[in-house]
Amino acid sequence: MSSQDDQRPNARAREQRLGLVSRPRFEDYCEKYKHFKMERRNGILQVQMHTDGGPVIFNLHLHNDWPQLWMDIGNDPDNEVLIFSGTGDKWIGGFDRNLAEQPIHQMPADAFYDHIYWDATKLLEAADHAVLFDPHFGDLGAVPGDGQGLTFQELMGLKRAAYYLYTSDKIDAQTAREIGLVNEVLPLDRLLPRAWEIAEKIMKKPRTVRRLTSAVLRRPWKRLLVQDLGFHLGHELLGIRLNGGV
Amino acid sequence: MSSQDDQRPNARAREQRLGLVSRPRFEDYCEKYKHFKMERRNGILQVQMHTDGGPVIFNLHLHNDWPQLWMDIGNDPDNEVLIFSGTGDKWIGGFDRNLAEQPIHQMPADAFYDHIYWDATKLLEAADHAVLFDPHFGDLGAVPGDGQGLTFQELMGLKRAAYYLYTSDKIDAQTAREIGLVNEVLPLDRLLPRAWEIAEKIMKKPRTVRRLTSAVLRRPWKRLLVQDLGFHLGHELLGIRLNGGV
Amino acid sequence: MSSQDDQRPNARAREQRLGLVSRPRFEDYCEKYKHFKMERRNGILQVQMHTDGGPVIFNLHLHNDWPQLWMDIGNDPDNEVLIFSGTGDKWIGGFDRNLAEQPIHQMPADAFYDHIYWDATKLLEAADHAVLFDPHFGDLGAVPGDGQGLTFQELMGLKRAAYYLYTSDKIDAQTAREIGLVNEVLPLDRLLPRAWEIAEKIMKKPRTVRRLTSAVLRRPWKRLLVQDLGFHLGHELLGIRLNGGV
Amino acid sequence: MSSQDDQRPNARAREQRLGLVSRPRFEDYCEKYKHFKMERRNGILQVQMHTDGGPVIFNLHLHNDWPQLWMDIGNDPDNEVLIFSGTGDKWIGGFDRNLAEQPIHQMPADAFYDHIYWDATKLLEAADHAVLFDPHFGDLGAVPGDGQGLTFQELMGLKRAAYYLYTSDKIDAQTAREIGLVNEVLPLDRLLPRAWEIAEKIMKKPRTVRRLTSAVLRRPWKRLLVQDLGFHLGHELLGIRLNGGV
Amino acid sequence: MSSQDDQRPNARAREQRLGLVSRPRFEDYCEKYKHFKMERRNGILQVQMHTDGGPVIFNLHLHNDWPQLWMDIGNDPDNEVLIFSGTGDKWIGGFDRNLAEQPIHQMPADAFYDHIYWDATKLLEAADHAVLFDPHFGDLGAVPGDGQGLTFQELMGLKRAAYYLYTSDKIDAQTAREIGLVNEVLPLDRLLPRAWEIAEKIMKKPRTVRRLTSAVLRRPWKRLLVQDLGFHLGHELLGIRLNGGV
Amino acid sequence: MSSQDDQRPNARAREQRLGLVSRPRFEDYCEKYKHFKMERRNGILQVQMHTDGGPVIFNLHLHNDWPQLWMDIGNDPDNEVLIFSGTGDKWIGGFDRNLAEQPIHQMPADAFYDHIYWDATKLLEAADHAVLFDPHFGDLGAVPGDGQGLTFQELMGLKRAAYYLYTSDKIDAQTAREIGLVNEVLPLDRLLPRAWEIAEKIMKKPRTVRRLTSAVLRRPWKRLLVQDLGFHLGHELLGIRLNGGV
Repeated sequence: MSSQDDQRPNARAREQRLGLVSRPRFEDYCEKYKHFKMERRNGILQVQMHTDGGPVIFNLHLHNDWPQLWMDIGNDPDNEVLIFSGTGDKWIGGFDRNLAEQPIHQMPADAFYDHIYWDATKLLEAADHAVLFDPHFGDLGAVPGDGQGLTFQELMGLKRAAYYLYTSDKIDAQTAREIGLVNEVLPLDRLLPRAWEIAEKIMKKPRTVRRLTSAVLRRPWKRLLVQDLGFHLGHELLGIRLNGGV
Repeated sequence: MSSQDDQRPNARAREQRLGLVSRPRFEDYCEKYKHFKMERRNGILQVQMHTDGGPVIFNLHLHNDWPQLWMDIGNDPDNEVLIFSGTGDKWIGGFDRNLAEQPIHQMPADAFYDHIYWDATKLLEAADHAVLFDPHFGDLGAVPGDGQGLTFQELMGLKRAAYYLYTSDKIDAQTAREIGLVNEVLPLDRLLPRAWEIAEKIMKKPRTVRRLTSAVLRRPWKRLLVQDLGFHLGHELLGIRLNGGV
Repeated sequence: MSSQDDQRPNARAREQRLGLVSRPRFEDYCEKYKHFKMERRNGILQVQMHTDGGPVIFNLHLHNDWPQLWMDIGNDPDNEVLIFSGTGDKWIGGFDRNLAEQPIHQMPADAFYDHIYWDATKLLEAADHAVLFDPHFGDLGAVPGDGQGLTFQELMGLKRAAYYLYTSDKIDAQTAREIGLVNEVLPLDRLLPRAWEIAEKIMKKPRTVRRLTSAVLRRPWKRLLVQDLGFHLGHELLGIRLNGGV
Repeated sequence: MSSQDDQRPNARAREQRLGLVSRPRFEDYCEKYKHFKMERRNGILQVQMHTDGGPVIFNLHLHNDWPQLWMDIGNDPDNEVLIFSGTGDKWIGGFDRNLAEQPIHQMPADAFYDHIYWDATKLLEAADHAVLFDPHFGDLGAVPGDGQGLTFQELMGLKRAAYYLYTSDKIDAQTAREIGLVNEVLPLDRLLPRAWEIAEKIMKKPRTVRRLTSAVLRRPWKRLLVQDLGFHLGHELLGIRLNGGV
Repeated sequence: MSSQDDQRPNARAREQRLGLVSRPRFEDYCEKYKHFKMERRNGILQVQMHTDGGPVIFNLHLHNDWPQLWMDIGNDPDNEVLIFSGTGDKWIGGFDRNLAEQPIHQMPADAFYDHIYWDATKLLEAADHAVLFDPHFGDLGAVPGDGQGLTFQELMGLKRAAYYLYTSDKIDAQTAREIGLVNEVLPLDRLLPRAWEIAEKIMKKPRTVRRLTSAVLRRPWKRLLVQDLGFHLGHELLGIRLNGGV
Repeated sequence: MSSQDDQRPNARAREQRLGLVSRPRFEDYCEKYKHFKMERRNGILQVQMHTDGGPVIFNLHLHNDWPQLWMDIGNDPDNEVLIFSGTGDKWIGGFDRNLAEQPIHQMPADAFYDHIYWDATKLLEAADHAVLFDPHFGDLGAVPGDGQGLTFQELMGLKRAAYYLYTSDKIDAQTAREIGLVNEVLPLDRLLPRAWEIAEKIMKKPRTVRRLTSAVLRRPWKRLLVQDLGFHLGHELLGIRLNGGV
């Protein structure tokens, strides 16, 4: 493929010239989300989950903001490649149930729906990240139905997935690479630099090729999520509602 | 196809001669089910739902027996063709919630699972019957997820199904025939004689052809139920558990 | 189902009390879209396409705003039931290609992607409306791949769909009802009142039941669109790019 | 779409200029098939099944030639639109089992495979034609697994298909139109003229649009055949092999 | 998840109190099956295949009892976790064709159907076990269509599966773990203790969570079996019927 | 399985005796293809891609002949097992764009269709070969949509496939074996002898078993290609047409 011009500025210019409805701009949302820190250079957006600058403590607040975040990011044509990571040395540093004001299983019906069911069905594009264990069944006594179990089934094979979902055993980085969960295992301080290296290589290709390629690569995930996520999630939530907990 | 011998007695004779585990026999279960009256002639089994000899009043008892009934019938090699009907002039004459001892949404978790979720997943072979309205949404304020809504979607098209599931409107017999729910519309006293007429015609074909043909005809239903019934049912039960009712 | 309280105000109150990121509110977007007129009462949102108050003239402007509109509407928890219609006596009153500044097939690659490919993949929830002919092949010499052809295939059967897509013949309202495209045929002045009548009936059911029911009814459409829309659209756009036109 | 040039001659010219392997030409195969009469004008190929100039008598000869015919036709880039019909006043005039030298169920394994299983799996593109009854179960005592039953299931709905496949009842032309098997019902002498009228209308569109549109319209059929035809056919052949006949 | 009560006794108590049809009890079937030895403690059922107390010799008797066994086990609500194993140092110790009285390919049609086709379609829940080679093609000259080939395709990938199914090569335990067939490789005397250890850990979770989790984990298997097992099996049986053998 | 006779000669003899249309014979096509060298012994066909006897230089000529080759080979009943390889020490030795006379993205619409779109849709049976990197995105700036990307997604898992398709990194033979792309890694001079060894072992089984087994093993590939290849290819070609290149 011959050299190519950066076409991103065109999208915004056209938007204005033709008087089209404006799509979100980085400055509109880059500080909107308390638990997500963002920076962007040359079309590459880096998002880091955090709590007060350290490893994120997962809570209802973050759970609620999650789908809003993806809609802003996905609807901004200036975002070309996404780097998504935790902060410090942990992907997720813990769970805090306080913000919910009450245990999930005792929430009133519509709050349960608004913050647990409804939000989660927006996660279609977020499944493609490395995970190291699924705490639902083994640790929390819940059905592993929030999409991570589905990712396990797809990436590591059904028998391995059954094992790790029933036991909630930890998967170390080397094993994760061998069974197809991650592609590279690196020292912590090399992670983000290497991510930027790959992102910049991807940015060298034409914009439409990048986006059509992404459509090809996400196709099996979209199919999987439409086929199965509602079943998984419906079963997880029914289990919570019948048994209390989480 | 040339003439053929009735092969049914062979199955039982072989079972005995080879000392195989015996499968259920008609005399074992024909009087086991309080709400299902059965008679069988020449491999054709007629089952009628009833309550005290009149139109059946649907209740937890019947809901519980339903999958047991199908396992007995389906596992008896002497059952070749099934005629399934109501009694008198109604398919179902009403609903009685008393037997449940408490409203469904207040049942303890395991009773809820045992009698509502678990049972229903066994209905795979029962979806192929004519229905005239779905009361879930319009009448009961429940999600139409017990398999009837799925049958509507498959047989009448997605747009018509959405209409009848949201409105719970009645579908008269003539309309039912036009939109693909039933194949013949007959006076009440012609219904069972005509069913036997068709059944006897089917019985004239070789046993293995009958059974392989049935595999061909049920294939899309089995696929549909595996793909969607768990999703539908999980959503219906979650709706009940969040809102009370039914 | 017992009586139920209106739970909608809760969602907003919770959002504020817990300091969650605010989702779009009606006042934010009700006048944002030049070609869509909106009013909302009791959770029922009516949206009408128009151009200067008369039947809408389809153009690039509307094509661009379409997915933005659905994201605003779909992300506002106060929208419960949607009534979507044209204005006056026409669903769509004509096409205007001027706004594009140049014919679609001559657009630069990224504009082509931004306004034609990318937008259209957001239409997932918009396929569920009555249509009366598909002009692509018979009138415009284009591949019928924008989702309407897919809707025809699903609702009227593959053989009828092939016929109407190859011929671009008009389908009158009565035929549309018979082949499953629409459910009711009414005089023009009864259309919106009847739509409100049905919407108000739906609003009487519990909020979570309404939403879970909608998940059940939209499931086959989501699956269909994920499986096929990209194939259809890719083929339509390739045809445009190879042959000029539209 | 603007006017367009006839691009067909280009394909052959390029083939020669570049020294590419030559694809079949009409003159190579137009008289190769004893039971198929062909004529072609302006890219429109008309094929008529016949036996000695009258209605075709279906036999092993025709069964064997069927997939060869489709490979020749499908591989000739000069064939643009196909009109496929019977001869005289019948689609198929009868069956003749003599040519097989022995009943199908007694054929040696490899002949059975070569002429029955293997041939049939090539019929992918031939399913899109109107049929009026399926004789397998009701008349021949065979499993309806050769693709016609699958076509019934897809076009008329599962319940109607079960009825017509079990009974082998005749479907008259008017009913066939109402349930989605055919699109127009015409006097015999209007059939071919009307087919040419539609074909010529299709030929007015650009060649690549025609072919990409055909890819869109055949997609559900290809999926259906890959998913189900092998299952159907395997069951039909197993039934024949277990019971004799056909 | 907080501590939970053992809910199993409830199911039986309710059954009796409400006069529901009784589901199978352990004492009804624990000695019914000549080739399956069972013991159960605290909801964990251990089943061992055997012949006269040593490694099982696979025969028609076992083939026939297989689906009956699963129906008894699956229909008893007191069975919560299943441990399924061979006896001694072999999973299967050999094959004995004598009980069939005649070679499979010479069985009369209905015996062939009853004991080979019909039985096998009940194996839906049995696919989830470790296997070490598939003898069908390489050793027996048969089509590998009884479900094991399907399991290979799903668990080890299509290319590896093609290799092992064509060659019937042995897969050692270490390789089996690496390619996703088994999760742990242990000395023989640690196998059952480790299985009980995992089973008891699973039993600590709430009953409904366990069962809903199982629905999530089995979902891809059910889909796979409905989509493909009939095709595989039909082809295997057709091969046997055409070629003799097995 | 008992001994078996070689049934291949029967197919040809029957063809002649019954006056059936003759299928292609080896002598008809063995020298027809400039870039494919063929030899056949005992039903085993070895095909080697080459350019002037050395490693093949991929060009439009070869691209055009590819589907013609498979139709000849697949339609000749004397071909039982296929060994497909490169020549010398390379699978593919390079690319030559000269034969196209002009860059692909500037070809007239129908040439683009004839040689790029249309040809490729015939590759259904050709996906099952070992590949070591996909140059589309990383090297050529094109969407990886010609079927190789699809093969990567199926064989190595979605996350690994995304990695290798975005980076176009080389996969060495050992890694290829570990992630499921190839089954054996051998010195170059052992490759063809080992292929013949396996082929001869396969040829020892009955002809119909071989062919029905092949139907079972290819089933997931056919499904995958019908579901996804058109989407992939449509996106690749749209990317080429929008950006120039390749």
